[in-house]
Amino acid sequence: MKLFHSPASPYVRLVMATAFETGQAGDIERLPSAAGPVKRDATIVARNPSGKVPTALLEDGSALYDSRVICEYLDSRHGGRRLFPAEGPARWRALTLLSLAQALLDAALLARYEVALRPADKRWDDWLTGQMAKIDSSVAELEAHWIDHLSGELDIGALATACALGYLDFRFADHDWRAGAPKLAAWYRKTESRPCLVETRPAG
Amino acid sequence: MKLFHSPASPYVRLVMATAFETGQAGDIERLPSAAGPVKRDATIVARNPSGKVPTALLEDGSALYDSRVICEYLDSRHGGRRLFPAEGPARWRALTLLSLAQALLDAALLARYEVALRPADKRWDDWLTGQMAKIDSSVAELEAHWIDHLSGELDIGALATACALGYLDFRFADHDWRAGAPKLAAWYRKTESRPCLVETRPAG
Repeated sequence: MKLFHSPASPYVRLVMATAFETGQAGDIERLPSAAGPVKRDATIVARNPSGKVPTALLEDGSALYDSRVICEYLDSRHGGRRLFPAEGPARWRALTLLSLAQALLDAALLARYEVALRPADKRWDDWLTGQMAKIDSSVAELEAHWIDHLSGELDIGALATACALGYLDFRFADHDWRAGAPKLAAWYRKTESRPCLVETRPAG
Repeated sequence: MKLFHSPASPYVRLVMATAFETGQAGDIERLPSAAGPVKRDATIVARNPSGKVPTALLEDGSALYDSRVICEYLDSRHGGRRLFPAEGPARWRALTLLSLAQALLDAALLARYEVALRPADKRWDDWLTGQMAKIDSSVAELEAHWIDHLSGELDIGALATACALGYLDFRFADHDWRAGAPKLAAWYRKTESRPCLVETRPAG
């Protein structure tokens, strides 16, 4: 599989962490990218019209996206324990946690675009406040209701949660998410040393 | 199932269209919502920290989100033909098309927030141009590469595509997506009369 890659994208990280966790990282050829919401990467757009990473290209020439789909595809192609539970309540819980982590990341990326990409005189405080509130609500929800789930065997929801918290440390180091979430912080401290997460630490 | 609902949300529409298509619309109790990216709905946030619709509440009290997860859940609970192919290339194609349609919608919603929600002096033309380019690239990709797939039996990717095009008609009526996409326009003309789409036409 070829993969349009960026070392700073938390969605690419989730795909690569899935590949490492399932023993398939060596099968992935990383393609460079220059994806952004304003300056688009025409090479990616030709295969995925959103122009976003991650976008995968399969052996048969077809394109596969987005991150959730690539992760589930990788998870269908290895012999170990599955990160996507096949069915029943375990599946819906794991997928809901994956959605929670990705909504946290969507908010974090919109907050970052607002302060790091948009010209200073075009920034809107209410928008930024709304996105940061989503981050804070998500951390509070993880602390209040998901610690038992996270403490079980790693699934795609827990892996996405780790990537989301790693992104907060990477881009929002001044926003101390740990202050009100000691159990989540303890879980993350243990989890971030997992090889699939060490191998995919963000850079850029 | 209870569902935080909004008659204008294309993501809610996808869930409700799935419910109608699979004969489960009568099992869904619609809860009112006032979800927005700046003014958040505390009642939703208490169950889904993103504060977004759709959010479902199951009989056992657990919350289920986001739209993809609710749709797949509904699809696992009926006896008819599945909208989510179980496995293999059909599954990856359907899920990639679902991602394409949702990325189109994500761009359309960001474009709408930019012009309908953000104060006029805070709008950034480059951002709006980037989002509109995603919409246009997505329509071009559908026209060039997905007509055969769309013309087959309805799957979740095709249903999401119809909801996405319906949203363009609803909120971007002046943006003539049909001009460069006659085959897609012909497919949509046939598909929008399907009962599950007639029952869920956007309003608001």
